[in-house]
Amino acid sequence: MAKDYQVIVIGGGPAGLAAGIYLARDRLRSLLIEKGGFGGQIANAEQVENFPGFPEGINGFDLGELMLKQAEKFGLETLLAEVKSIEFNGEQKLIETTAGNFTAKAVILASGSERSKLGVPGEKEFMGRGVSYCATCDGAFFKDKPVAVIGGGNAAITEAIHLTKFASKVFVIHRRDQLRATRILQERASSEPKIQFLWNTIIEAIDGKDFVERLKLKEVKTGKASTLEIDGIFISIGFKPSTDYLEGVLPLDKAGQIITNERMETDVPGMFAAGDIRNNSIRQVAAATGDGATAAFYVRKYLEGI
Amino acid sequence: MAKDYQVIVIGGGPAGLAAGIYLARDRLRSLLIEKGGFGGQIANAEQVENFPGFPEGINGFDLGELMLKQAEKFGLETLLAEVKSIEFNGEQKLIETTAGNFTAKAVILASGSERSKLGVPGEKEFMGRGVSYCATCDGAFFKDKPVAVIGGGNAAITEAIHLTKFASKVFVIHRRDQLRATRILQERASSEPKIQFLWNTIIEAIDGKDFVERLKLKEVKTGKASTLEIDGIFISIGFKPSTDYLEGVLPLDKAGQIITNERMETDVPGMFAAGDIRNNSIRQVAAATGDGATAAFYVRKYLEGI
Repeated sequence: MAKDYQVIVIGGGPAGLAAGIYLARDRLRSLLIEKGGFGGQIANAEQVENFPGFPEGINGFDLGELMLKQAEKFGLETLLAEVKSIEFNGEQKLIETTAGNFTAKAVILASGSERSKLGVPGEKEFMGRGVSYCATCDGAFFKDKPVAVIGGGNAAITEAIHLTKFASKVFVIHRRDQLRATRILQERASSEPKIQFLWNTIIEAIDGKDFVERLKLKEVKTGKASTLEIDGIFISIGFKPSTDYLEGVLPLDKAGQIITNERMETDVPGMFAAGDIRNNSIRQVAAATGDGATAAFYVRKYLEGI
Repeated sequence: MAKDYQVIVIGGGPAGLAAGIYLARDRLRSLLIEKGGFGGQIANAEQVENFPGFPEGINGFDLGELMLKQAEKFGLETLLAEVKSIEFNGEQKLIETTAGNFTAKAVILASGSERSKLGVPGEKEFMGRGVSYCATCDGAFFKDKPVAVIGGGNAAITEAIHLTKFASKVFVIHRRDQLRATRILQERASSEPKIQFLWNTIIEAIDGKDFVERLKLKEVKTGKASTLEIDGIFISIGFKPSTDYLEGVLPLDKAGQIITNERMETDVPGMFAAGDIRNNSIRQVAAATGDGATAAFYVRKYLEGI
């Protein structure tokens, strides 16, 4: 027998936790299901400088813990489990997880997305200590220092252009001999004196002591190895929304992201989405918590039939 | 000669300050113009319990100060002045204020909105100490206590229904003998045992010692005076977006709010809006800061021509 709630939130990052704070405070019977650790992607961030309210910055893991504590203070129930599938039965949603089945009239999808990884030695070890997946988040930490951007798409080139405001030098390292990015971005990047392209080049390893100090590179055509001294590496080779369990359940965009309106409603009544899992999300904590609060607000109206 | 910036933010509440944090950290030459005090509406809130990251709650004025400090730390320039008008000159926006004129290519409108006031003795004195304009914000503080809701529209009746989850009793006080709220809301409110209507009744004064203790009422038709003992009064008689300086500049909705897409863009290129001033805003700090971050993010893309 599936246990019934008014609302189930899937995902315990900033979007899910913000929704949880609102739902629990509003006394809706709610369950938040998280598969790994609470806090989402920011749990890996050494320092979050741009979440409003923390002028000295805050460690990402600590920020997640504060949000979890706040949600639990208002009585939010949480469960560590992986969601396997969602089925609709009229207005009711059936959630199958690795720790049992649950039903709810409303669901907030907040399972986020993962940045694609290079999968090279040093990448995991130096995450948050020179390895970053987000120039908007971490660019400001590399003032007057040389950095590298990995990738050749619009996102990578946009990141590279943005990084010229901070870094002393920006190497764009791409495994092919041309970019996928649009012409206008290519032109802008090419005219930036701080940007230097390294073509047909792949990363073999990320190396350093406490922080990243250098990259070990290989030229694909010649096989020639080299070393590049940099302080930061921004990996921008795509991301994967955590929406595997939603295939066939909800319409997703080409990138696998969920399409919502500004009330965080999807096409299916009672199904909401918030945070990085959304199409057009800016992938920032402040926006994710705003999404979560907004989703919870309109979930309440949905449940109240307003 | 008008001083030129890349971005001008109008309004120093959570939406404007969040935008300011992002803009300044992104090294865009930005000016934030605030007419009164920083922090916006929350500056009046004794305790904000639902802004993610503060499990013990935080005083609203203090939260605003933290955000201001954070924005100034990244070098945001601020100005205390009132905006008189905005004019467009091609891509450039000319902002006329009480402290001089300024130009910018991008503008973020974040001047918020004001709740309509009753204008009775005690209203101002007890703000944040029993007088509230937002059940979502403050309802949870009135667990098992009697409260009153003033108003007869959809917002007021929605607030009243929501408050039944917390309060021991909810008096809906309306100056007419019928509601403006939709039929479905009227029916739901009428079937709520905790809700009691007081028709044709106006508030003469809000009274108490440290906190609100009672209302002085008058029946409009008979002129009869009475007293009602309550712990909280929720005034829900509308709101006024601070968009006077925007008439004829931007298309506004019927309530005078600014219409944006989910990137916070208005119909006019380079004009963005964030927070309570927006149509469909949920009027919560978390959502306002999310709006502000999002607006700043897309302003950057706009300026970079991406």
